[in-house]
Amino acid sequence: MNITKALASFDALWSPRIVATVNDYDIRVTKVKGEHLWHSHPETDEFFMVVEGELDIALRDRTVHLGPGDVFVVPRGVEHKPSSAHGAQILLVEPSGTSTVGDPLEEVPDHVDATTGHALRLP
Amino acid sequence: MNITKALASFDALWSPRIVATVNDYDIRVTKVKGEHLWHSHPETDEFFMVVEGELDIALRDRTVHLGPGDVFVVPRGVEHKPSSAHGAQILLVEPSGTSTVGDPLEEVPDHVDATTGHALRLP
Repeated sequence: MNITKALASFDALWSPRIVATVNDYDIRVTKVKGEHLWHSHPETDEFFMVVEGELDIALRDRTVHLGPGDVFVVPRGVEHKPSSAHGAQILLVEPSGTSTVGDPLEEVPDHVDATTGHALRLP
Repeated sequence: MNITKALASFDALWSPRIVATVNDYDIRVTKVKGEHLWHSHPETDEFFMVVEGELDIALRDRTVHLGPGDVFVVPRGVEHKPSSAHGAQILLVEPSGTSTVGDPLEEVPDHVDATTGHALRLP
């Protein structure tokens, strides 16, 4: 499994694919562009690594700007809203079964996939 | 935290640095060259992603060859021996406290650091 090939295998935004599982954790990849929504994960930390592009993670008191190779952990329970003006490709590490929208603090917009991650379907 | 900068901050081989923790899991980066040793982790899976270079992971019945962006999970209890003829930079995901040598099946050579991961010391 190659993460570049995995990311090339789908176009959907804000819709993670599971590339590997490690015990009861998922390694997911996702493409993003535009805005996600304010939410938190009351039960778990969430790890972000930018593979390509730039990602902003708004917290209530600041916004974290991430570029390629940058990593950031949103601690459990911390309200956050990811966004990317020009698009990004991201690797995530979080427990299997974690929802993309966690505990949502606003209505989930149509362009955001509320999911616990999809299986990859490589050509 | 940037994984390229993290990897540039140390030279030691087979001696992982912890770049982030996600609940009770570590995200580690490590530089490797030459041979590690046959070992297993009876308690946990181990996730490898190659950031740069090429890594071989010998299993008892085959050898997995990994290049940049390739990911592989060694299942818990599976005997394996990583090696890299020309050197590689790697990202690892495994539970905090997991030893680099796990349950060693041969004497730990002097060039391998038996550790649960070191803190990063960025300049």
